Amino acid sequence: MDISIFYYNLILFPKGRIGLYLKVKSREEILDIISSHRPLDTEKVSLFNAIGRTAAQDIHSPEDMPSFPRATMDGYAVKVKDTFGASEAIPSILTVIGEVRMGQVPEVEIRSGEAVKISTGGMLPSGADGVVMIEYTHTVDSDTIEIIRPISPYENVIRPGEDIKKGERIIKKGDMLRPQDVGVLSGVGITEIEVYRRPQISIVSTGDELISPKQQIVPGKIRDINGYTLQGLCIQEGAVPNYLGICKDNPEELKSMIERGLESSDSVWISGGSSIGVRDITLKVISSFKDTEILTHGISISPGKPTILAKIGGIPVFGLPGHPASSMMVAEIFLRPLLRRLRGLMIADIRKVKLMAQLSRNIESSSGRDDFIRVHLRREGDRWIAEPIFGKSAFISTLIHADGYICIPKNREGAYEGEEVEVFLF
Amino acid sequence: MDISIFYYNLILFPKGRIGLYLKVKSREEILDIISSHRPLDTEKVSLFNAIGRTAAQDIHSPEDMPSFPRATMDGYAVKVKDTFGASEAIPSILTVIGEVRMGQVPEVEIRSGEAVKISTGGMLPSGADGVVMIEYTHTVDSDTIEIIRPISPYENVIRPGEDIKKGERIIKKGDMLRPQDVGVLSGVGITEIEVYRRPQISIVSTGDELISPKQQIVPGKIRDINGYTLQGLCIQEGAVPNYLGICKDNPEELKSMIERGLESSDSVWISGGSSIGVRDITLKVISSFKDTEILTHGISISPGKPTILAKIGGIPVFGLPGHPASSMMVAEIFLRPLLRRLRGLMIADIRKVKLMAQLSRNIESSSGRDDFIRVHLRREGDRWIAEPIFGKSAFISTLIHADGYICIPKNREGAYEGEEVEVFLF
Repeated sequence: MDISIFYYNLILFPKGRIGLYLKVKSREEILDIISSHRPLDTEKVSLFNAIGRTAAQDIHSPEDMPSFPRATMDGYAVKVKDTFGASEAIPSILTVIGEVRMGQVPEVEIRSGEAVKISTGGMLPSGADGVVMIEYTHTVDSDTIEIIRPISPYENVIRPGEDIKKGERIIKKGDMLRPQDVGVLSGVGITEIEVYRRPQISIVSTGDELISPKQQIVPGKIRDINGYTLQGLCIQEGAVPNYLGICKDNPEELKSMIERGLESSDSVWISGGSSIGVRDITLKVISSFKDTEILTHGISISPGKPTILAKIGGIPVFGLPGHPASSMMVAEIFLRPLLRRLRGLMIADIRKVKLMAQLSRNIESSSGRDDFIRVHLRREGDRWIAEPIFGKSAFISTLIHADGYICIPKNREGAYEGEEVEVFLF
Repeated sequence: MDISIFYYNLILFPKGRIGLYLKVKSREEILDIISSHRPLDTEKVSLFNAIGRTAAQDIHSPEDMPSFPRATMDGYAVKVKDTFGASEAIPSILTVIGEVRMGQVPEVEIRSGEAVKISTGGMLPSGADGVVMIEYTHTVDSDTIEIIRPISPYENVIRPGEDIKKGERIIKKGDMLRPQDVGVLSGVGITEIEVYRRPQISIVSTGDELISPKQQIVPGKIRDINGYTLQGLCIQEGAVPNYLGICKDNPEELKSMIERGLESSDSVWISGGSSIGVRDITLKVISSFKDTEILTHGISISPGKPTILAKIGGIPVFGLPGHPASSMMVAEIFLRPLLRRLRGLMIADIRKVKLMAQLSRNIESSSGRDDFIRVHLRREGDRWIAEPIFGKSAFISTLIHADGYICIPKNREGAYEGEEVEVFLF
């Protein structure tokens, strides 16, 4: 057993609420723990299924692209030195000995004084070392053209390997695959790619008061919200949610649900239990596994302080607050990065959508914790105005009205009206 | 028949390249055409499948949330006036007459001088109008507590409908559904939602030189790239790509492929044909349908000028350049907005991921067209540096090395080293 039992005992018999948070970590510490988690194992997928997945290895081109010299313009393939000195007044006169058919190896070979008609993308005939654009030629008769401008060697031509060289790295391990990456892989003949597996996430909602969204509401009961926001987050992030359902505030039932989750998934997320008693059950059950390491009993953020993070047999297990708005903010700040990490991405990915806005009013904040304030965005002239949305932390409506959130870091005591703030979009 | 035939005749017998672009529109004009297209029809999906989809109607809450008064803290439900004047020195003394069980309707009713133990989320007993946090109480004996602070009416309580009122709009038509939206729908008991249908896109790659990525490369042939980047874009944007395959430069074959595409999809994208002859085939085939309206023969952007946009029977049909980098830029600038529009989103959605960076060098640009320059991003201290990536427009490697792109609008002739530029991320 583990030192967490020491805390656990204190928590079971707290003198006051302070007992709950003996082991509190900062946001940075939790993100460091997440960053240090290893990505999942890998699998081979078709190009079609690779979009949005993360490359699990560097990929080098197995061949030159293009594999042959190609025209990049419509015109005539020539020997470049035949064009030297050519002008409107004194054109070079060349004999047209044929035409390159698209997709075919040209049958002719060019000698000095000769030209072959070619279209964009056509293969240069042997002997040719440049293409004169059709605009700089005049047709004299069916066999003869005039060139009115000189070209330099390999002008309007891509040489073999000039775009991508054989052996060149085209995809870097850890890259998220975009449409153009898949296009390039197709171009060099790679039709399958090794990517990190999709995270499998087990989700449990706890609480004697919870019912399913399909059930009729009755006094005292509320429908499960967190189970659905958390599944939604998984889908957004390319993970596979495994919703285990609603669990009563009962240690045996919770333990068996967590066991099921641990068997089949890469992380287990338990939401619910903002009351002391229920948090205690969650913590007690998590602690009761023989290979549990409790990493934190709380995080110095608001909302979301009563968040438990543990590893059971190396698998991250989160105990999230029951209040939907708190649970969702914790999901944004920690679970999204966790999913990215499991998928093999850098969690500090620049692709987090954010924008700068001007704060519409003063906000007070406690120092010593990172405060996450939901905001509504509105356009005023050429800038965005961020209007803080306040409301009890138990409200879910604050989240649906919010376009994003701002963070007031723990070393600040607030933010001022008119201040430029960075808004992270939901 | 339509005025486009007039242009078509000119294009079939051009005096020079200028003939190709008789009907050239600006980026703004093309985006206006796209914006004015109607969204697709709608379908009902489960909450689980609604993430990332667009709501096709306003949704109002069918009930109050919560449906009953709930405690937001652990403590004691009381009559607020019993706490007035309470302090550490002169506490209010109350009789504990029971405990609220989570998820249950309390059986007791509170009278003056009485308190009921309650946990976060519990239902307030009738007669109670506030909750005193446990921290502000002392236990005297099993039936008696002292209250050491007054509370105000409904303190630590959410009243019925206080979070969401029955009839209140919770989802707006045109909203993209996020995890928290799905959570709220679940909370008010809505388990299905009307969303716009996923766009079905038919994709054709044309060119006698094209082979499939599974085929061995031979001189003169190249593997299809555009067909894969365009499928990738569809997947990224929640559309369903229908790749019809490679089409020879043959009007009959192309016509029958477009016919197949029109039957089963919401837009048809034909890539290939940067040579005059092949562009002519595409334009001729598009024009040959009886209900064709040619909207443009070109767009004043670079790369991507030789882009055809038509509507056949009201369905948008794009003829994209053959060069992969050009085709991909056109896809970013026009096809992504088209997909968003078909999905019922505003195409000017703020969610396009961008950041500000400093340009690493001067860039020249032609006025009269919007220039899209691919850039590589690198971090220098606390800012991003955007390094332009140059290369022949036929190169695909420029796209895999690019993190994003910048736009030099048509009224500018370039951008300067050190200038702040907006980078749109790929």
